[in-house]
Order: sequence, then structure tokens, then C-alpha cells
Amino acid sequence: MSNEPGQPASGLSPPKAVVNRLSLYLRELQRSLRAGKETVSSKELAGFLGLTDAQVRKDFAFFGQFGYPGRGYRCGELIDAIRNILGTNRVWPVALIGCGHLGRALLGYRGFAEQGFSVVRAYDSNPDLEGKRIGGLEIRNLNNLRDELMASGIAIAILAVPVEAAQEVADRLVAAGISGILNFAPVTLSVPKGVAIAEVDLAVELEQLSFAVAKGLENQ
Amino acid sequence: MSNEPGQPASGLSPPKAVVNRLSLYLRELQRSLRAGKETVSSKELAGFLGLTDAQVRKDFAFFGQFGYPGRGYRCGELIDAIRNILGTNRVWPVALIGCGHLGRALLGYRGFAEQGFSVVRAYDSNPDLEGKRIGGLEIRNLNNLRDELMASGIAIAILAVPVEAAQEVADRLVAAGISGILNFAPVTLSVPKGVAIAEVDLAVELEQLSFAVAKGLENQ
Repeated sequence: MSNEPGQPASGLSPPKAVVNRLSLYLRELQRSLRAGKETVSSKELAGFLGLTDAQVRKDFAFFGQFGYPGRGYRCGELIDAIRNILGTNRVWPVALIGCGHLGRALLGYRGFAEQGFSVVRAYDSNPDLEGKRIGGLEIRNLNNLRDELMASGIAIAILAVPVEAAQEVADRLVAAGISGILNFAPVTLSVPKGVAIAEVDLAVELEQLSFAVAKGLENQ
Repeated sequence: MSNEPGQPASGLSPPKAVVNRLSLYLRELQRSLRAGKETVSSKELAGFLGLTDAQVRKDFAFFGQFGYPGRGYRCGELIDAIRNILGTNRVWPVALIGCGHLGRALLGYRGFAEQGFSVVRAYDSNPDLEGKRIGGLEIRNLNNLRDELMASGIAIAILAVPVEAAQEVADRLVAAGISGILNFAPVTLSVPKGVAIAEVDLAVELEQLSFAVAKGLENQ
């Protein structure tokens, strides 16, 4: 690799959709590595994702020079580079806001740990929940949210509160120095520039399922 | 449109990743339409998604001929065509299996209805829950799952059971004629060919959030 990972080779900020495809490349590389393949070509990666190989090379060019001419990409090396670019090779301490059904279900989601997200604080505004423990964490009230989060150095919050409360809580998270919110409330949050929002939306999964079922029924 | 929507123009089955991109095109078309745009070019669509326009045209070619030479795509028409291809222009009755924290959180997820998924049955193996009502539905036990689902004509199930129970329940769903499962259990289900599985995995969202936060922190 001739460029430092994480340094856009082109000097341009990659479009969101390109960063999104990094996640897809990562999955395919991990799958290839598990299958015992040590290298893949851009053509193979392209084939897995239904892309042209020019598109694959163009996507990676935003981040550096990762392949070996005539030999393709080394899976392990490219996995490490992508995880470094995405920042999932470190551990992010995370605060969970909202300990209702969704919050509790999320605390049991092992994918958080796999992606380096460690839930270290749990908050809820319901006084009946205060002091109770879920997933090894004591539920705190929101009274000192700002001071507690600022002192903790936590940069990421999972927002699992009712839709009516979401914007107000988001404002408080921003005031507490949170720079990334994983939002499960079905509302588009308004936050200052520099604060990242990831919206969780099952629409894509539902559409893919619908397509497969509809196609299957047609073929019967 | 010179081809019937839903009829692959190329005669080939589209790769999963191409069907996945249909969901992304749909979002961009809906966004454009809301912004008052009546037509978009393949170049504009490509720009939104960081793709080459050749890639966009190649993707659509799997499903038919949707554009007008020199005038691009009509947003409303292409939205309808994609929803028709994906099967989300109809209502799918759905059974929810598992009424714990996750199942209850999911029942409140309004995205299901927006995508044409209507949860009409709720099941749980916990006898304490039997007969209780959630989201207007009475929770049923699993004793007669097969007969009840077969009689109902339900083709899609949402699986929100603990990981230990997931495969066994999936087997019972398949035996009951279910042809699509939205799986929230963190396990890869083994099902016969012809049964579609959509896995819910927050990894992509977490990675995008991590990228944005890491980049923001670097810039500070």
C-alpha cells in the first residue's frame, strides 16, 4: 500500500454511497478469507457486488492504492485497511438513551461489540427504571446527561427513545459533545454540521425480502 | 416503458446486489420527486450514488427499458416500476414470531406499513404471554402454528425469537408454507431453496457512523 490508509488519495471527500460500499466490500473480503482465499481481483470483487471492475477501482482510489498490479488485493490486508478507514478497528464507548423494549433488545445485540461499539452507559427518563440494571449497566436518569457524557469522553450515542422525545434528546446529546448518533426513532433529526447521524431503516431489507417472495410466488 | 415491469429484459436473474441498488435508486427518486423534479438522468442518479452512469443503465437493463432517450427517467413512473418489481406496491400480511422486547419494539415500527407489510398475527412460546394483546393483536401460542399459517395464506414471517430457538422455529415456518423470513436472530438460518431470508444486520450503519465520527474527530 503506497498511501496511508484513511488518507483520501484523490484528496476528495468520498461520497456517502462510496463509504457505504466499503462495508459491502468488507463483507465480501471477509467471506473470501473465510473460504481460504488469500487474494481477490477487482474483477472478482466487482462480480460479487454486480459492479463493473472500473467502479471498484474508482471506489478504492478515494482512499489510497491498495492492490498489487497483476495480483489483485490481499484479503487480510484490505480488510485491515478498510476497518482502519471505517474506524471499526478501535473500541468506541457508547451511551444508550432509552431503555424501553427497543433499548433492551438492542443491549442484547452482539453486532455492536463485533463492530467495536461498547455500550457503557444506559439512560432513561422513566423514574421507575432509575437504578435498575440491564445488561450489567445501571440505568441513569437524564438529569446530569450533559456533565456525565462530557466527563466520560463518549462520542457516540444510540437513540432509542419515543419519536416525540427524539429531537429534544438529540439536542441534549449534541450539547454534551456527542458527535455521532445511531437513530432508531422514525424521525429525521436536525443536528449541527459535524454531528453524524445514522438512521436505522429496515426498508431495504423489507424490499429485498418482498422481491424474493414475489419472485418465488410467480415461479410457482 | 417498452417492457413489462418485473420482466427481466436480459432474461437473466439480477444479482442480489443489483436488486439491493434498486432500493437505493428508489430512495433517490422519491427524494427528487419530493424536491419537485419530474425527471432525472442516469447521470444524475449515478452522481447521487457515486456510480458511473453506465452502471446505472446496466442495472436497470435487468428489468426492462425505463428511460426516454435524451430525456432521462420520469421519477413517478420509475418509482412505480421499481415498487412493482420489488413487490412493495401490494400489502403483504405478515406473522410476527417472538413477542419479547425486540418483537414488541418491531410492532411499533411504522416502516413495516410503509413498505406494505401488515403484521396480522403475533406468536410467542411463553405461556404467560398467551392471550395478551400487543399492538391490537392477541398473542397466540405456537401449538397450531402450521395449520393456522397454512389456513391464513401468510407468506412472510418476522423472526424475533432468541438465538437458540431460531432454527427450530424457522423449520416450522417453512413447513407452514412461509416463503420469506425477516430474521433478527443473530444466526445464519438454514432453509430450503425457494425460501428467502433477509438478515437484519446493523453493521453497515455502525460502520458508516464510525467513519463519520472518526473523520470528524480527525478534523478537530
